[in-house]
Amino acid sequence: MAQSIPAVKGTRDFYPEDHAPLQWILDAWRRVSLRHGFDEFDGPTLEHTELYTRKSGDEIVEQLFTLTDRGGRSLAMRPEMTPTLARMVAARQGSLPRPIKWFCMPRMYRGERPQRGRLREFHQWNVDILGVSGVLADAECILVAVEGLRELGLTADDFAIHISDRRLVAEILTAIGVELERHAIAYGILDKASKMPIEELSRRWGEAFPGILAFDKLWAALSAADVGELSGRLREVAPQLGGLTGAAGLTALMGALTSLNIIEYCKLDLQVVRGLAYYTGVVFEAYDRRRALRAICGGGRYDDLLAMVGGKPLTGVGFGMGDVVLFELLSDLKRVPALAASGGVFVVDIVGGGTGGAAADESLPSNELLRIVAALRRAGYRTEFSYQRQAVGKQMAKASEKKAGHVVFVSDKSREQGSVELKDMAAGTQRDVAMADLIARPAEFLGAPKC
Amino acid sequence: MAQSIPAVKGTRDFYPEDHAPLQWILDAWRRVSLRHGFDEFDGPTLEHTELYTRKSGDEIVEQLFTLTDRGGRSLAMRPEMTPTLARMVAARQGSLPRPIKWFCMPRMYRGERPQRGRLREFHQWNVDILGVSGVLADAECILVAVEGLRELGLTADDFAIHISDRRLVAEILTAIGVELERHAIAYGILDKASKMPIEELSRRWGEAFPGILAFDKLWAALSAADVGELSGRLREVAPQLGGLTGAAGLTALMGALTSLNIIEYCKLDLQVVRGLAYYTGVVFEAYDRRRALRAICGGGRYDDLLAMVGGKPLTGVGFGMGDVVLFELLSDLKRVPALAASGGVFVVDIVGGGTGGAAADESLPSNELLRIVAALRRAGYRTEFSYQRQAVGKQMAKASEKKAGHVVFVSDKSREQGSVELKDMAAGTQRDVAMADLIARPAEFLGAPKC
Repeated sequence: MAQSIPAVKGTRDFYPEDHAPLQWILDAWRRVSLRHGFDEFDGPTLEHTELYTRKSGDEIVEQLFTLTDRGGRSLAMRPEMTPTLARMVAARQGSLPRPIKWFCMPRMYRGERPQRGRLREFHQWNVDILGVSGVLADAECILVAVEGLRELGLTADDFAIHISDRRLVAEILTAIGVELERHAIAYGILDKASKMPIEELSRRWGEAFPGILAFDKLWAALSAADVGELSGRLREVAPQLGGLTGAAGLTALMGALTSLNIIEYCKLDLQVVRGLAYYTGVVFEAYDRRRALRAICGGGRYDDLLAMVGGKPLTGVGFGMGDVVLFELLSDLKRVPALAASGGVFVVDIVGGGTGGAAADESLPSNELLRIVAALRRAGYRTEFSYQRQAVGKQMAKASEKKAGHVVFVSDKSREQGSVELKDMAAGTQRDVAMADLIARPAEFLGAPKC
Repeated sequence: MAQSIPAVKGTRDFYPEDHAPLQWILDAWRRVSLRHGFDEFDGPTLEHTELYTRKSGDEIVEQLFTLTDRGGRSLAMRPEMTPTLARMVAARQGSLPRPIKWFCMPRMYRGERPQRGRLREFHQWNVDILGVSGVLADAECILVAVEGLRELGLTADDFAIHISDRRLVAEILTAIGVELERHAIAYGILDKASKMPIEELSRRWGEAFPGILAFDKLWAALSAADVGELSGRLREVAPQLGGLTGAAGLTALMGALTSLNIIEYCKLDLQVVRGLAYYTGVVFEAYDRRRALRAICGGGRYDDLLAMVGGKPLTGVGFGMGDVVLFELLSDLKRVPALAASGGVFVVDIVGGGTGGAAADESLPSNELLRIVAALRRAGYRTEFSYQRQAVGKQMAKASEKKAGHVVFVSDKSREQGSVELKDMAAGTQRDVAMADLIARPAEFLGAPKC
């Protein structure tokens, strides 16, 4: 026997029982996106590596899966969607109707060490609005994220969207003495806070910003539950800080989220800054309420990104939600429903008493069976049968295993009188139906088709 | 302005107007697969390179996109699905219920020179049955391919499934003197026939098999329309050939295809052999009737593959259908329908006369509008509105552009009396509806929701 080849570590095999919940998630994401007026798009898996090295930030770039094509070009498997989105919009910037409201659900690739909530290959829902600078576009993206999670059965007790604003955090950083061109470094350290011990963060912060406010004091101030509390705490640690003008955007956003009836899902959290380098305004992440897992989704405003990839300036806001942490949360909370196909038709062959018989090749089902099967499928019914001549009991066992809603019995009578027996499995009733009628008007006997 | 970064050659950007037909194709493939009793699965994009080098055949291996991960392992982006399928089945061979009827619609990657019908990244529908050795599983796969193409509006005038059998071709090759261990080389040359001039093929054939029947004579014999004609032609060029026992399988298959009512879509074509090394029986390809394009799909029986990837022996049959040639055919025949979203709800804001007004922030739509929008979306209606306060005419123009089925007018009356005007765009009628009723029972006013 040949040696077996395992799956690559950090990737997943989706057997049918694993694929059904994935598809359930993808379908919910798509439904919710469409309802909110977003159009689906997609891009290539492979992009020129430079698209990411230019803007995504160090962590993403370190994790790129890169390869060299026959022409010697460096290509990368996409680790995130926003650069592709920006590239595509920039390429047709003059002709796209505004606002641009697009979503997609592509696979992403990151060469990181596989661990809980982190795989090297995953699906990510992306929702973006370009060309709208107002707070309403920020609110709309947060609304879609909330509704996407609600659609999967999650409630305000299960998750919250943690909302911050880079403009406000930048104002604070500047006030405590971090130079503007070094803000990205500060964001990088702050973004690691939930993933690292505070001692390590303090060490990194002290190295990067010696003589500036200590990390633990800044971190404590940022844990304020609202802007008023934040101001008070900051004045204690950084008396030089004036009024927080950067808070106005957050106040307006919270107002819009209240009008949209989702404020119970949202909370201010200035400890959220996001790792990616290109955010310029509101940033947000969804977390489970118990904070047992990594972020469920993350996003924010990136008003400078288009210009960075060669387009004209165009504002943008959006989020990405992966399937890995989300599925962990749904599993932990036992919210993944039973998803096996059911309610189809199973056609049982009892021609010649069900033990073999009248077909040209006796090992094959009868022609009548094949005709009915092909016709019902063409009419939209999930229709199955046994590939082999088998005893009726075995065929019925298969019908039960497949959770058939109806069973059609094809017998000698079908050949002789053109009729079949039709059994409704839920009702337990059985009746004689003309084969021609079943083929011509299946909905009359089987209800509306499901696929 | 930063320099723009182009898309990678041979990949595609799916703008919303490009994604809609792709999704239309993917939805049809999924629907048809489910109807025929197949369960969806998927695997990783990245596999250990050895999974392909062991069995896929030279052409595929030459075109692999490979990369080295941090652990120094050689990984490849999947160029075809069958090896992953075989690996997954082999890993759980004991516990999977039989027959295994699985489908998937993954992206595939091949580092070839981009040309008409060939891209470096494409979608491929895969449909496979494992554990059934009878002719009925071959027929079932061909049925699914036919119904998948029919579901997209293609008819028997547009395409045909060309069917052959490696066992029959092998019998012929052996009879004319090609040693068994060199059959794969012969298949490789035969598979190139539609892509290369006959002179080049003759040269390759003569080099590989000197002194054996000339290529053009073999090729002409294989163009026979049925097994009888084939026997006659072969006896002329290779008198040593006996009766073609390998033809029995094809005869049985054609019988099953007749019972399944799709024989008009099928034809015998022994010039089809398929390039992949692992086929062992029936092989088939779909072509447009005009033969203007490359194969639309290809598949066949691979009874030895499981053992080759480390499993226990298990029979299998399946096909792959890409989206690239299929979309070219559908476009050429003008069968791609108009697919833009329509029939949603557009909510127009005329609070304060529609020019600004009563919201907390005057640049934002009114709270009433936001409440209605959020409620209708949650009820399943594609609901849109203008992000900015705008004149009514501009908002209505947007509603038309979005092909809204209903327009809801939110006005001062909504705030004062709690009612909105609802316009049915198709009927042109307009009526007063209580806001609370619209939110509580939208289907009564808007019909059933679509997403």
